[in-house]
Amino acid sequence: MRIHIHQQRLGAALQQVQRAVSAHSTMPILGGIKLTADVDGLRLMATNHEIAVETYLAADSDETLSIEAPGSIVLPARYFVELVRKLPDPWVHLAVQQPYSVQITSAKAAFLLHGFDPEEFPRLPQITSDQPFLIYSDNLKDAIRQTVVAIAAEETRPVLTGLCMKFDSDSITFIGTDSHRLASRKLFLQGGPEGASETAVVPGKSVHELARLLPEDDTPVAMTIADNTLLVSSETTRFFTRLLEGQYPDTSKIIPTTFKTRIHIRRDPFASALERALLIAREMQNQVVRLQLQSDRIELSAHSHDVGRVSEQVPLDQFSGDALTIAFNGKYMLDAVRSFDGEQLTVDFTGTMSPMVLRPTDGQEYLHLVLPVRTV
Amino acid sequence: MRIHIHQQRLGAALQQVQRAVSAHSTMPILGGIKLTADVDGLRLMATNHEIAVETYLAADSDETLSIEAPGSIVLPARYFVELVRKLPDPWVHLAVQQPYSVQITSAKAAFLLHGFDPEEFPRLPQITSDQPFLIYSDNLKDAIRQTVVAIAAEETRPVLTGLCMKFDSDSITFIGTDSHRLASRKLFLQGGPEGASETAVVPGKSVHELARLLPEDDTPVAMTIADNTLLVSSETTRFFTRLLEGQYPDTSKIIPTTFKTRIHIRRDPFASALERALLIAREMQNQVVRLQLQSDRIELSAHSHDVGRVSEQVPLDQFSGDALTIAFNGKYMLDAVRSFDGEQLTVDFTGTMSPMVLRPTDGQEYLHLVLPVRTV
Repeated sequence: MRIHIHQQRLGAALQQVQRAVSAHSTMPILGGIKLTADVDGLRLMATNHEIAVETYLAADSDETLSIEAPGSIVLPARYFVELVRKLPDPWVHLAVQQPYSVQITSAKAAFLLHGFDPEEFPRLPQITSDQPFLIYSDNLKDAIRQTVVAIAAEETRPVLTGLCMKFDSDSITFIGTDSHRLASRKLFLQGGPEGASETAVVPGKSVHELARLLPEDDTPVAMTIADNTLLVSSETTRFFTRLLEGQYPDTSKIIPTTFKTRIHIRRDPFASALERALLIAREMQNQVVRLQLQSDRIELSAHSHDVGRVSEQVPLDQFSGDALTIAFNGKYMLDAVRSFDGEQLTVDFTGTMSPMVLRPTDGQEYLHLVLPVRTV
Repeated sequence: MRIHIHQQRLGAALQQVQRAVSAHSTMPILGGIKLTADVDGLRLMATNHEIAVETYLAADSDETLSIEAPGSIVLPARYFVELVRKLPDPWVHLAVQQPYSVQITSAKAAFLLHGFDPEEFPRLPQITSDQPFLIYSDNLKDAIRQTVVAIAAEETRPVLTGLCMKFDSDSITFIGTDSHRLASRKLFLQGGPEGASETAVVPGKSVHELARLLPEDDTPVAMTIADNTLLVSSETTRFFTRLLEGQYPDTSKIIPTTFKTRIHIRRDPFASALERALLIAREMQNQVVRLQLQSDRIELSAHSHDVGRVSEQVPLDQFSGDALTIAFNGKYMLDAVRSFDGEQLTVDFTGTMSPMVLRPTDGQEYLHLVLPVRTV
């Protein structure tokens, strides 16, 4: 392998694949990034057995990559990534030397970096689909961001540490819950297999990596499920993740369909007041914040024997139904409120001991549900 | 105590004093900040028995502070500092309530925060001097930054974990050494006591806090040593630190006064090449980097059995004396090179096993000495 590549292009590609590098594996080769040059371009990949990322740089797309000789090598990410970042010149030349080392030259700096046998690098799953689920990158990224906040951090029920994606022929529904709160978001597809009905539960860590990798634009991405693996691919990049096994609970029945009290409230002042209430509540069990609803005013409050107390009137845009006082985990409520994009939220209440449901005032495809906490 | 103060002014003062708050003391009151209002202004202070910071906000300096009633309280920093940052309005009203709580109101948010008895807060040392050492803040900050890098991280010889300051009537000399390298910087004073000759060894952690506190401008500061304490004070702020006990070694004799080889070299390309060499050397014992000096070229190199090797020719501005090959700890050399401000450095060599001396090409008041390492 002998290639000539622009530092910036190589650096950007390395940044994508290095997320899948295994930092602390007992197999040193998994701490590596595999480079494979063919006559058309350069492929980079990394995997940690949980996720894998592969990206392809075409040699003919611009003048920033030329392939002098095809070939392959695995290079240790912890040295190679930083080395590329610190090169003295925008251009770098890589030349593989036997056995499994690469000569890296840039201006007057010459490195020899030891690598690994590319034949020993794990193969990526062979997944193909002529009818994948099609979606835009920014929409997928948004839906993940809005729902992943509600997944469980603790492993008591392992399946809840994942984000559930229910695929059908024209939409994906994302569901996250830790059994104290739930987030649900429906995304309509650009295309999908007819009559499809599949469920994938993606490990929380993988979902975060996927969201980081997705560009914030309308790049089309294709999603495919096979062999207990989810593949998310764009034109140049492929992301693989293992799926969680186990039955995801049916959450459709816990979402209330009626309400006794409904408020419209502005997101930012409500979030700021919750942050202030949490200053007092954050070290108490359940981080209890109380909300008093009356037709003309709503008040947030919290108190802690050790720290003190706070109360604050929050601006209310609209109120209908009965007066009510309810207590909840302030952190869960703040996570929910922050996950919305719009200026205004609708919050529905069906009683002191029933879940609260938050929705954007102008939409039905997204909701956050927070359970109240019992207080004395 | 009842005061009305602008959030930003209070926040800036809190940021200064909170550096001296003890985060994990067995005495909860040391996790607090003491506020004392008199008719003229508000004094804030914190101490962790190692350092203390006190700052004074005058009520008449502008319209951002008004004192309605004098008084005092100690408030827990971990709540109060963040609370002030998160207030809904630029104005905040503080009113002490018995016993030892404060009512904090800002717009429609009302807090009650529990505090401590101000009478139980430690007193600051009573240090006065009618003839302190006078210096500009930015000069002091620079001198600290340039020399503190060479102090010892390990406690083998406790006195070396401090920065030595030798005061005389017209200058302070700052010395840091961990016995493998040494930094020395002389600063001329704006004024000092006649015939003075004092030495203070300031603990490394205190020096870092002092540097953070000092503004990057020509604010005059006064330094005074008394009762094993260094006091650094500006018009509004006072910083106290305990000093290290023990005899600081006499370092004057280890600085070579002659040289056999001298080079002039540009700082930035040399630093970048050292960074690249350290990529290979950083995990080896002593992080050995080798420098080959010839009349027309110099070359940096490093090699590691596990990682690989690097060599690079470095731009040389001027060379005089004998050809030489020398090896050193690359991290120590990089720390030294980075501590200089100018574009060009002079490095003097007296042999393969003798210390290298780095100086700014255009000055004599500042030097860095790095010992070579023996290699096979």
